[in-house]
Amino acid sequence: MPAASLTHIESVGLPSDAPSYPFFAFDIVHESTDGSDACCGVLRTPHGDVETPNFVFCGTKASVKGLTPEQLREAGTQIVLSNTYHLLVWPGSELVEDMGGLQEFTGFRGPMLTDSGGYQIFSMGHGSVSSEIKGQRTLPDEMRSLIDISEEGATFRSYWDGSVKTLTPESSILVQKQLGADIILVLDECTPFNVEKSYTESSMRRSHRWGLRSLQEFSRLDCQQRQALYGIVQGGTCPSLRDESTHFVNTTPFFGSAIGGSLGADRATMHSVVALTAKSLRRDRPIHLLGIGGVRDIFHGVRHGIDTFDCVHPTRLGRHGGALVRRDFWDTDGSGGGSRSDKVKEHINLKKSPFKRDSRPIDASCGCYTCRNFSRAYLHHLLKAGEQLGGTLVSLHNVFFMNRLMRDIRSAIRSGTLDEERSKWVHPALDA
Amino acid sequence: MPAASLTHIESVGLPSDAPSYPFFAFDIVHESTDGSDACCGVLRTPHGDVETPNFVFCGTKASVKGLTPEQLREAGTQIVLSNTYHLLVWPGSELVEDMGGLQEFTGFRGPMLTDSGGYQIFSMGHGSVSSEIKGQRTLPDEMRSLIDISEEGATFRSYWDGSVKTLTPESSILVQKQLGADIILVLDECTPFNVEKSYTESSMRRSHRWGLRSLQEFSRLDCQQRQALYGIVQGGTCPSLRDESTHFVNTTPFFGSAIGGSLGADRATMHSVVALTAKSLRRDRPIHLLGIGGVRDIFHGVRHGIDTFDCVHPTRLGRHGGALVRRDFWDTDGSGGGSRSDKVKEHINLKKSPFKRDSRPIDASCGCYTCRNFSRAYLHHLLKAGEQLGGTLVSLHNVFFMNRLMRDIRSAIRSGTLDEERSKWVHPALDA
Repeated sequence: MPAASLTHIESVGLPSDAPSYPFFAFDIVHESTDGSDACCGVLRTPHGDVETPNFVFCGTKASVKGLTPEQLREAGTQIVLSNTYHLLVWPGSELVEDMGGLQEFTGFRGPMLTDSGGYQIFSMGHGSVSSEIKGQRTLPDEMRSLIDISEEGATFRSYWDGSVKTLTPESSILVQKQLGADIILVLDECTPFNVEKSYTESSMRRSHRWGLRSLQEFSRLDCQQRQALYGIVQGGTCPSLRDESTHFVNTTPFFGSAIGGSLGADRATMHSVVALTAKSLRRDRPIHLLGIGGVRDIFHGVRHGIDTFDCVHPTRLGRHGGALVRRDFWDTDGSGGGSRSDKVKEHINLKKSPFKRDSRPIDASCGCYTCRNFSRAYLHHLLKAGEQLGGTLVSLHNVFFMNRLMRDIRSAIRSGTLDEERSKWVHPALDA
Repeated sequence: MPAASLTHIESVGLPSDAPSYPFFAFDIVHESTDGSDACCGVLRTPHGDVETPNFVFCGTKASVKGLTPEQLREAGTQIVLSNTYHLLVWPGSELVEDMGGLQEFTGFRGPMLTDSGGYQIFSMGHGSVSSEIKGQRTLPDEMRSLIDISEEGATFRSYWDGSVKTLTPESSILVQKQLGADIILVLDECTPFNVEKSYTESSMRRSHRWGLRSLQEFSRLDCQQRQALYGIVQGGTCPSLRDESTHFVNTTPFFGSAIGGSLGADRATMHSVVALTAKSLRRDRPIHLLGIGGVRDIFHGVRHGIDTFDCVHPTRLGRHGGALVRRDFWDTDGSGGGSRSDKVKEHINLKKSPFKRDSRPIDASCGCYTCRNFSRAYLHHLLKAGEQLGGTLVSLHNVFFMNRLMRDIRSAIRSGTLDEERSKWVHPALDA
């Protein structure tokens, strides 16, 4: 990629004293021998190490819904994120700073990540959060809170008190400094799926300028004393734009690279965008894939070199009674309707009637607190009765499940058995 | 009390083979030396021992709301109850039996208690649950589910599916046998506060006949193989009726005695009814006070010989952000508005604005998980943001608080320092 194509960001430029991230490191400890780009690494942060590949759980409003930090830790969790947008609106980042930062405030005294706040603003502006990445339905007008996007930043209406707020690259970095997570992100616009390529392109270039302004502010505020900044690759589903954005992120002194923006309307497109983007990203920096957490998607991402993933899916699913299950369930259990390809999913819905009198745990081979102590019948009862313990216990299973998945993936990378490992987690019907 | 006054129950009579409760015992291990009736005991059940005095937490629908059995145990909980009425309506007692009984179903593998189901039926019929005991407002007609009370039993409409169900003394015992709690209760009518003495009297006598029918069924079903039955003293606020009812319970082969029914409209009446009733109850049987859980009420009850208490108060309060506090809080903390008598309560409301930036734990001297890990500011944030973790963490504090209270009370009974102990928990302004 010739430097000439980056003329649109020359107006911003690099900080004179580029950060060196003295308190962070990313060490690759094992590279796959099976021809894939999978690798095991260690992401070192001031609050501890994260073994990669790994999964980042969502504690949107400074709480992974319904779970204590102790429960998260016991389920094997190494890293949690919180959302800048939500915390900015309530209780405010100054308050979190006064209380010692997110780790002290939430009691999760391990590595944490915050996003820039842009994702929520734009997804609430253009459509629902998940519809952004996956190109689905959009929100009705009255639920949209985005008022304006300009070169300066984004103006939106607070869902908390209706007040009008502006988020700029600079204010996002300040807020994230106050929140104090180990890993923080540049402000970007998460472009919707259904826009013209020309909008995606101009938005991407503005996001690059915002990325540089974020880096400038990161330097100016000397955030590197306890934080590391990730750039974000945009470009929608267009290969040439993804290429341009990858080049920008690779050549800018960020600590890590995140893959953001719209990944298309279906799984095949998403996989192809992820593969293409990850292939061009530097391997000496950690790569985070934003907002993706399906089991198949994680195996795909890991093979293409993704180091960390995040998604509300495991905990949101759990709250509503969906328990993640391995391939075995469909082959041997019977209660899910067998392994007919139209029945097989990555999870089961414990609210369904076949589980009403089922005295077995979700998964007898699972070592989580829920599977060691409770039957499907009890979970079904709690979920149907509206007892919040039901959602908590299923979420806890899902957290353990994801951490077990990531641990087994790391182990399989080391032993060169990622394909065999995948066949234990993903039913063939899901690939049909 | 002459036997002649019990003629109204002769039509029922005692079972020919009265239960001997072979797997239960109540051992008094220390009697107070300070002139009160306080004593320390051990209530031995097939699922373990309960040190008395103690507090029974409410797991209404087979779950202490938002808390896992592990969290309950770690907070010092020895015994939990579930409500027969709620479980009868959903998921049904046969299902709980099929799943191995309440202890296995809920994962709380310690002593448990069920009520007879009558309390909820009558309180939902006559008024709200708490209004029954405390003589407050009643429910609007459309929320009343009680259809009929007759000699046979009570007919009510299920809140779950609208179906009409009948609860008799016999069916209550069968259902409680299926649920499988260690301690079970006879069916009684919990008479409202605002009724004529003549209704309270005739209702009480019917409750006695129901008590005998409950005992007959307990014997017939051989429940004593794993359960113990408590009789219930009725009689409202009328001393002569309480006397008659106490005599009935004392002379019937129940394992324990519970004090039920309306205890009047104010704390003074309640204390006088409890004192009067407990005084006449046998001391070789455990005495349970139904539905009372205020700190002052517990000190009062303990002094008059009450061994166990239950109430939704600590966990319901916690879910809504109310944290129980000791006397110290009002004398030294400042954030509650000082020790002005019009401000002092047994709890603080963490949703209030003075706690927004308060980095202290609820109580620095409390060893609970919540106080060891979280600030008032974090709890305030969670509660205001509607994060269920807030209610869970405050409930957990309240459970620990109640268990600490009961442990300290037992210790104070042994050392003859109950008055000094009370002064650490109850602010003088609360006695004004």
